[in-house]
Amino acid sequence: MSTTPAYDTLVTAFARQHRLDHLQQMAYWDQEALMPVGAAAARADALAEMATLLHGLRTDPALADQLARAEQEPLDAGQRANWREMRRAVRADQALPSALVTRRAQVHARSELAWRQARPRNDWAGFVPHLREVVALAREEAALRAAQTGLAPYDALMDGYEPGMTAAEVERVFAPLHQWLPGLIAQVQARQQAGGALVQPQGPFPTAAQYGLCEQVMRLLAFNFEAGRLDVSAHPFSGGVPEDVRLTTRYDEDDFLKSLMGTIHETGHGRYEQGLPRALLGQPVARARSMAIHESQSLAFEMQLARHPGFVARLQPLLVATLGMQPAFELPNLLRLLHQVVPGPIRVDADEVTYPAHVVLRFEIEQALIAGSMQVEDIPAAWDEGMQRWLGLDTRGDYRNGPMQDVHWAAGLIGYFPCYTLGAMYAAQWFATLRRQVPDLDARIEAGDLGVVFDWLRTHVWEAASRFETPELVQRISGEPLNPAYFEAHLRARYLDAAG
Amino acid sequence: MSTTPAYDTLVTAFARQHRLDHLQQMAYWDQEALMPVGAAAARADALAEMATLLHGLRTDPALADQLARAEQEPLDAGQRANWREMRRAVRADQALPSALVTRRAQVHARSELAWRQARPRNDWAGFVPHLREVVALAREEAALRAAQTGLAPYDALMDGYEPGMTAAEVERVFAPLHQWLPGLIAQVQARQQAGGALVQPQGPFPTAAQYGLCEQVMRLLAFNFEAGRLDVSAHPFSGGVPEDVRLTTRYDEDDFLKSLMGTIHETGHGRYEQGLPRALLGQPVARARSMAIHESQSLAFEMQLARHPGFVARLQPLLVATLGMQPAFELPNLLRLLHQVVPGPIRVDADEVTYPAHVVLRFEIEQALIAGSMQVEDIPAAWDEGMQRWLGLDTRGDYRNGPMQDVHWAAGLIGYFPCYTLGAMYAAQWFATLRRQVPDLDARIEAGDLGVVFDWLRTHVWEAASRFETPELVQRISGEPLNPAYFEAHLRARYLDAAG
Repeated sequence: MSTTPAYDTLVTAFARQHRLDHLQQMAYWDQEALMPVGAAAARADALAEMATLLHGLRTDPALADQLARAEQEPLDAGQRANWREMRRAVRADQALPSALVTRRAQVHARSELAWRQARPRNDWAGFVPHLREVVALAREEAALRAAQTGLAPYDALMDGYEPGMTAAEVERVFAPLHQWLPGLIAQVQARQQAGGALVQPQGPFPTAAQYGLCEQVMRLLAFNFEAGRLDVSAHPFSGGVPEDVRLTTRYDEDDFLKSLMGTIHETGHGRYEQGLPRALLGQPVARARSMAIHESQSLAFEMQLARHPGFVARLQPLLVATLGMQPAFELPNLLRLLHQVVPGPIRVDADEVTYPAHVVLRFEIEQALIAGSMQVEDIPAAWDEGMQRWLGLDTRGDYRNGPMQDVHWAAGLIGYFPCYTLGAMYAAQWFATLRRQVPDLDARIEAGDLGVVFDWLRTHVWEAASRFETPELVQRISGEPLNPAYFEAHLRARYLDAAG
Repeated sequence: MSTTPAYDTLVTAFARQHRLDHLQQMAYWDQEALMPVGAAAARADALAEMATLLHGLRTDPALADQLARAEQEPLDAGQRANWREMRRAVRADQALPSALVTRRAQVHARSELAWRQARPRNDWAGFVPHLREVVALAREEAALRAAQTGLAPYDALMDGYEPGMTAAEVERVFAPLHQWLPGLIAQVQARQQAGGALVQPQGPFPTAAQYGLCEQVMRLLAFNFEAGRLDVSAHPFSGGVPEDVRLTTRYDEDDFLKSLMGTIHETGHGRYEQGLPRALLGQPVARARSMAIHESQSLAFEMQLARHPGFVARLQPLLVATLGMQPAFELPNLLRLLHQVVPGPIRVDADEVTYPAHVVLRFEIEQALIAGSMQVEDIPAAWDEGMQRWLGLDTRGDYRNGPMQDVHWAAGLIGYFPCYTLGAMYAAQWFATLRRQVPDLDARIEAGDLGVVFDWLRTHVWEAASRFETPELVQRISGEPLNPAYFEAHLRARYLDAAG
């Protein structure tokens, strides 16, 4: 006889949801990577039906009743953490009526399709009606979630990606950026210009060769190809399920660094998913902690590790083997290439120094959109002003590489963007901790021992999954709360102090 | 106020099932075409969960109640046909307990995975335990279906693929084959040997070039790539949903004809699905009529049309453009190549003359397996004896190209194989009818007018979907029941009487 019958019933119910969600995730991945355009309406209907079904399972009054009964049962600490995450999932769904869940799935699917078609044509005007619908729906959702939780509307949306995070806390850790980032960008650029001319890689780099390079680098990063794939999509992402991680990238034959660094980024996400505790898969406690923690893994790979001189030394022979030798691939030049700081319009192609500017701008715009103080029509002006202010770029009229560059708003992911820079800050804090705990870390990476990084991330982040709330996880890993000073220190050390 | 409230409720319920089945079909296609091997267990669990869910929806007592009430409502002929197909679907699911549906999905998924791994290794012994489990389950399912329907056990399984068909009827139309087929094979081979040496194509034919050829031929056959794709799988099949048809093939760099003819076969399936009545999609009446009628479309494309001299003349420039010119592609030689009759071990690579031998052998083995007069261990001996008897081939020890060549048994599709030769017979009957109705048919195909064939199939087969039971459909289209004489006449005309 189990002493936790209600909890056991919940475990069964959530395992069932996990199995159904598997189909949902695969269909979503397929939609982005493979689906022919004519299937969009049928796919949107199918995804909306499943979203509604899953919402119905999680808002079943019987489930709420079992949650209440399980709370009184003698749960151990791991079970109690799982119960907490179950309750979080149930409450999040209880905030929304079923009809809104169905409608949201359909609106987002239509909008994303419109984005995929409008973006290559730079057709902002054609995309606006869809984005307006997405924003209206996001305001409606934010109001419902705010009413349920007592949070501010934008905070209530962000809570879905980064539980417990608020705009006030984001502003606390982003505020210093406004002080030091513009100056740092200028300083680094001046220093790099003084360093003399760089040899730029000479393309074209055929897609097949780039795929081969990406695949080899994923193997170097110990991605498990028996439990995942790399494919192509208009906007790179990490999808699928922990048992079958589907990463995507996109290829530009003139610039192999885009697909390479994008793939390394997604591999960080992928290894987190593949490293979640297998025995508990299907339970909420075994899910990735949050999207900022997820981005801390992708950016630990893309920024912290992939630009480390020891990693670049491992990367170089793979470049030569797949793309052929050329002067740009001489190791000192390659390292400088990967440390180049160049303000550019595209977030996913940005270096780690200018990256936060992209995020802060989106964070500002999103907040204003949800508050109603900005309308969709106002986005381009705010965008152009922000890009000029932060990065000195004139982005007027280039919607494709401006407010239409990311899938997020098209797909209704409003409240997500702060997670990238929070993730970069967490990643810097992880590496600072790791360096304290493993004093010869840099020497070991120089010697080609990447396992020291993977093992540490596995133990502290991947296997912890959702066992602890984010602030407790951060405290346990690093001995202090999120501290943005580590990120600044990392950038100064790498871009101003280092020899390269 | 609707006068058919119960019927309307059923329409809504089946539309919902169609949307959920969309996810199921896509995940199944992905499993066969793309899925990494390590994801097999999670995928099997997900597919089993959905199979159980759909079974639960169709066996809901409320649905049965609505079916009974709708029968009394003033339905028009189309609605009544839809009601009949709804009842068929519900009854088929009522025959099986939910636990068996779950178990069946898991057993079939495991077995199919084992097959995919064992086949390349020719590992019959490793596959036997899985096939034994599949056969045991098929016997159990056959007994339950037989108890419900009063059909014989094997007939009850076949009913799932070809409703209303019985082994006795299959034997009626297959019986003449035993008389004339062995003699015809010998006669054709003797005639072809007397025709002098053929120029064989000289490979290798790179996979990318073969893919290009297949894609162009699919366009020639008017496959809609906005509502479908062509990919690769271990066993070629046509999957997906009518809105998103997923065809697969496999490439052998030594022999482009395998992928080409396989692709043409699957394109026949695909155009049937794409041609189903769009306005009714999601309703049972809008589904393909049956698997024999489905195969009548794939074989109408692969055998009737693709080997027609007028089509071969259209195919030849595509071959030259994608694979380069070589002596084998001279039109008279190419036509002889495509009319070559060569007994071989592989069904899907067989010419249309020897193909029925493959099917009859499998039909005999399947019946004995379900009757319990044959065990899985006995299959290789029966196989070897049958291949020797029918085609004079020694297949001993070659399990990979013997009883393990097809996915069907591994996937639990027992009772399906007769549909191929029934389909070939229907296809011959369709073309005989079409030739009566369009006397200049051959001249029009010679002139490159393939639309005349597509339009006829669309009108008579695709748009009819499941409006009529198969015997009525056949009678309506051709003015008589299934008549195997057309198939024999077609083969004699093409392989003995024709000039080429």
